[in-house]
Amino acid sequence: MKLATYKDASRDGQLLVVSRDLSSAHYATGIANTLQQVLDDWRFMSPQLADLSEQLNSGKARHAFPFEPARCMAPLPRAYQWASGGAFISHLERLNQAAEAKLPRNFYAEPLMHQSAGGHLLGPCDEVEVASEAFGTDFEAQIAVITGDLPMGTKPEAALDGIRLLMLANQVVLRQLMPDELARGAGCLQSRPLAAFSPVAVTLDETGGAWREGRLDLTLHTSWNGRKVGLCDAGSDMTFHFGQLLAQLCKNRPLGAGSIVGSGAVSNADWSRGYNSIAEKRAVETLDNGKASTRFMKFGDSLCVEAKGKNGQSVFGAIDQKIASPE
Amino acid sequence: MKLATYKDASRDGQLLVVSRDLSSAHYATGIANTLQQVLDDWRFMSPQLADLSEQLNSGKARHAFPFEPARCMAPLPRAYQWASGGAFISHLERLNQAAEAKLPRNFYAEPLMHQSAGGHLLGPCDEVEVASEAFGTDFEAQIAVITGDLPMGTKPEAALDGIRLLMLANQVVLRQLMPDELARGAGCLQSRPLAAFSPVAVTLDETGGAWREGRLDLTLHTSWNGRKVGLCDAGSDMTFHFGQLLAQLCKNRPLGAGSIVGSGAVSNADWSRGYNSIAEKRAVETLDNGKASTRFMKFGDSLCVEAKGKNGQSVFGAIDQKIASPE
Repeated sequence: MKLATYKDASRDGQLLVVSRDLSSAHYATGIANTLQQVLDDWRFMSPQLADLSEQLNSGKARHAFPFEPARCMAPLPRAYQWASGGAFISHLERLNQAAEAKLPRNFYAEPLMHQSAGGHLLGPCDEVEVASEAFGTDFEAQIAVITGDLPMGTKPEAALDGIRLLMLANQVVLRQLMPDELARGAGCLQSRPLAAFSPVAVTLDETGGAWREGRLDLTLHTSWNGRKVGLCDAGSDMTFHFGQLLAQLCKNRPLGAGSIVGSGAVSNADWSRGYNSIAEKRAVETLDNGKASTRFMKFGDSLCVEAKGKNGQSVFGAIDQKIASPE
Repeated sequence: MKLATYKDASRDGQLLVVSRDLSSAHYATGIANTLQQVLDDWRFMSPQLADLSEQLNSGKARHAFPFEPARCMAPLPRAYQWASGGAFISHLERLNQAAEAKLPRNFYAEPLMHQSAGGHLLGPCDEVEVASEAFGTDFEAQIAVITGDLPMGTKPEAALDGIRLLMLANQVVLRQLMPDELARGAGCLQSRPLAAFSPVAVTLDETGGAWREGRLDLTLHTSWNGRKVGLCDAGSDMTFHFGQLLAQLCKNRPLGAGSIVGSGAVSNADWSRGYNSIAEKRAVETLDNGKASTRFMKFGDSLCVEAKGKNGQSVFGAIDQKIASPE
């Protein structure tokens, strides 16, 4: 099934079930009002939502209405945990090579992960407010999972069983603020401030068999200002699968239902597939020509991220957002 | 007023109003079930809770019962934001000097802050499960605030108006894992895994005038295995006040209602006041004798943290917890 959350002026919005082809939707009222409620009580509530989903897909849901992605909040608008990992090694290798930086210790053994805050997650069409163009606004288009409860010390293979839903995500990165924060050593608070999510979150069975042991074998279509910049495979070059990312995160603490974990920018070893972060494009330019020529995002710039199944259909709907200056 | 959350087998527990002297309590049922509900709608709900608090304090609440801190979850058991800052510069100076490390850039201008996850906050008497004694289990006894909504770019003085409640906190730090994580550069995911909070969270007017422009002029009583190790002033040496910590955090993003922000380990320039983290004690030993002699916490070790007002009464109740190996 596919789940979305409509804006309704409340903090957590109103939960919807969305049809497989993203054309119609139905409020989940009577089952649950919010996605967090469902995640908190998944075994009881998800079968009821699955029934509603089946009715909707077979055209039998009585109060179905056309689905409008622009009315969506993030599927989970507030999360108790939002972290993203560097699962695609080619992305980090390029950035490190261009910066002539040493690879971090255990680079190929343990994923690097950024702990972020989940209190204000953006919907797919929400504007991204950035205080200054000088901050070097970048995107990191990626795959994300929403989990159930994972006890402390859960191993990678067992962690896969705790994955409830999949989404697309865009982590907004303010690249010019990052070196200073990294040098100070306490993590990226100001340089990784916001993230946006696809209109719908889907169960693993909605991927048409593309979910394969913690990796998602789909093509990520990424456009910047209407120009296609990435057509990357989100599965094949994922060095650390989602079970490994989750295990890294819950090594010394439990993860609660509704934790969101992202893969980091999707990246392929084959550079001709394009990119999912400007920093990677600039790194390749630096390696090829001695300097970066592609600029970061400006106010008014747009980003569109979508994943299509083998049948050509959009699986999650599109993240389609603009960079804006604060009012 | 003073608010607490009793365990009831649900994820968010049951909200209580607690009497000023911490002797009795009353369920907030009929007003709100959880603290997050109150924070989401503070202007509407807090006056109702204040009325109940007044009844309770004057002995007129009909269904009052004795308050038992051991039954408490954290006042806010799940938070969408939990970050802590290095507001007490003497703590960080000692650690840096002992490690012969260079002070981070802008050390005296901008607080260093760690972004943590708030999905699993511990109650005051919950055991702290640590996988191995070799990880070097340490505490960081500190003051924490719970906020209302703060827009992106809120300035320090304005941020003070967004503070709703005060608590005590203990951030569990696995010191032996920290150098490696710091060297990898992506923040402390595994080395700062858990945090515990005092039985009650209190409004600013409950401090007997000790709240002074973002600092709390109370003495923090800290005992380790029953031995007093700290009797520090939580106000005077706080270099960055809570408004500054909050402004640092919401520079590039909004902070939502229910965000928790901690001060970092309370520390005084006058070392005779003792310590609120073993790392600081070990740093002073290293500076004095060339090596640290105090060990980190072992399984079964206990920590007690309490703040007392000028009248000698406990303001928040005590964090009183033990280190445990996983079952």
